[in-house]
Formats: sequence, C-alpha cells, structure tokens
Amino acid sequence: MMEKHPIELQIEKADTAIVQEDFDTLMSIYSEDALLVVKPGMNATGKVQIRKAFEAIAAHFNHTLQVEQAGMKILEAGDTALVLAKTVVSASNMPATERRATYVFTKSSDGDWLCQIDNSYGHELLLHENV
Amino acid sequence: MMEKHPIELQIEKADTAIVQEDFDTLMSIYSEDALLVVKPGMNATGKVQIRKAFEAIAAHFNHTLQVEQAGMKILEAGDTALVLAKTVVSASNMPATERRATYVFTKSSDGDWLCQIDNSYGHELLLHENV
Repeated sequence: MMEKHPIELQIEKADTAIVQEDFDTLMSIYSEDALLVVKPGMNATGKVQIRKAFEAIAAHFNHTLQVEQAGMKILEAGDTALVLAKTVVSASNMPATERRATYVFTKSSDGDWLCQIDNSYGHELLLHENV
Repeated sequence: MMEKHPIELQIEKADTAIVQEDFDTLMSIYSEDALLVVKPGMNATGKVQIRKAFEAIAAHFNHTLQVEQAGMKILEAGDTALVLAKTVVSASNMPATERRATYVFTKSSDGDWLCQIDNSYGHELLLHENV
C-alpha cells in the first residue's frame, strides 16, 4: 500500500475536525494569513476570520455537515503544493454535492504543510465574476 | 477601467511569449523550482526541463500554437496566489479547446510574482489517476 502524502493526512485531519466541530485542531492546519473561500464572492482571511466562518457554516448546516474526499491529485514544487480534489459535502439540509476543489499548501519553516488557500468551489468562482 | 493584477500581466506576457516562441522571456516568468504539467501524467520540474518541454510543445503543434485567457479569478494570500482561469488553446492541428486551468504563483524576495505550478489541465488530471 502506498504511503500517504503528508498533505493528504492534513486534509483528512481537517475533514474530521470539521465534522467534529473541533475548531482548535482545524485551525492548526491553516497558515496565519490563509484565505478561505466561504462561498463564491465571500472570502475569509487569517485564522480569526476563518474560524468564525467555520462556526457559522456549522450552524448553517444544523451541525450535520459531512465532508469527504473522493479523489485527489497533489502537485508539489519546492515549498508549495497544489491539490486538485473531488470533495463531497452533505448535511441534513443539503444533498451530497461533489465539488472540484482547489487547495494550495505551503511548507512552514518547521516543515509542516499548512493550508494557504482553501477554495472548495474551484472554477465555480468564475461563474460569479463580473470582470 | 480596473487596473490589472500583476499576475494577470505575467500571464499575458507568458501567453505572448509562448505564441512568439520567445523562450527567454517565457522562462523569466517561472520560479527556479517550478512545475509544469506537460500533459496528464507528465510533469517538467525546473527551468531546464520546462524550457525543453515548451520547445517540444511548439514543434508538436507545428509552431502554430495559440494561447489566450477567456476568464480569470485570482485568490491572493500572503506571498502565494491561486489562479483559476479559462485558457483557450488552439493550433493548426488542434481545434480551439477550453481548459479549466489552475496556476499557483509565489512572490519572490524581489517582489515579483513568479509561476510556481502551471497546470493548464486543472481537474482533468484526476481522470488519469490510478489511485
């Protein structure tokens, strides 16, 4: 069996933390100046905003949000990595939805891979552009 | 008119350099340890490999390759940025094809945005995975 990439392990940890609403563990996966696309057109920047966004998301989905990965490709170049993933989200008030997610991780000075850009919507953002 | 993001200008410069086969200019846009997805399953790493790949691509398309962007969203977080683009490629031996490209740029110590990961195939890579 192939050993998992450290980034895949970080994403698994994040998904479990989201489901368990363990926001301390969840925040340990993000870099200080990370960006989260909360929904198309709305971004959260930095750990304080990102934590608040996840708390609001948990409430919005009646504390029943489920997240899992259905496929993943990691492209690593130096201290930067791009993750292309099929992310399946569901909740009591949302049927299972597959998103073509794009995540960027950067390696910290401690050698840990941290999430720098979390865009689970992938190219969907281009549908909402006015440019 | 909105001023263009420096990364958008870099991408325009790269597209023009690809069409003109001006590989010196093209290479100035990549970081030293950049990764280029040449085609699904084949990556080039570092400027030497990337330049050779672009030379081979130019020959493969009979020196008629055209590249342009048909929409772009830039997500910037610290010294890292994720670009989601609709990239249209065509050549005398290839009809116009729109790709949902994903690019990662990193800011150099000089303040220049350089391409770190160039994956014009986006999530198409997941179709070629054996995992």
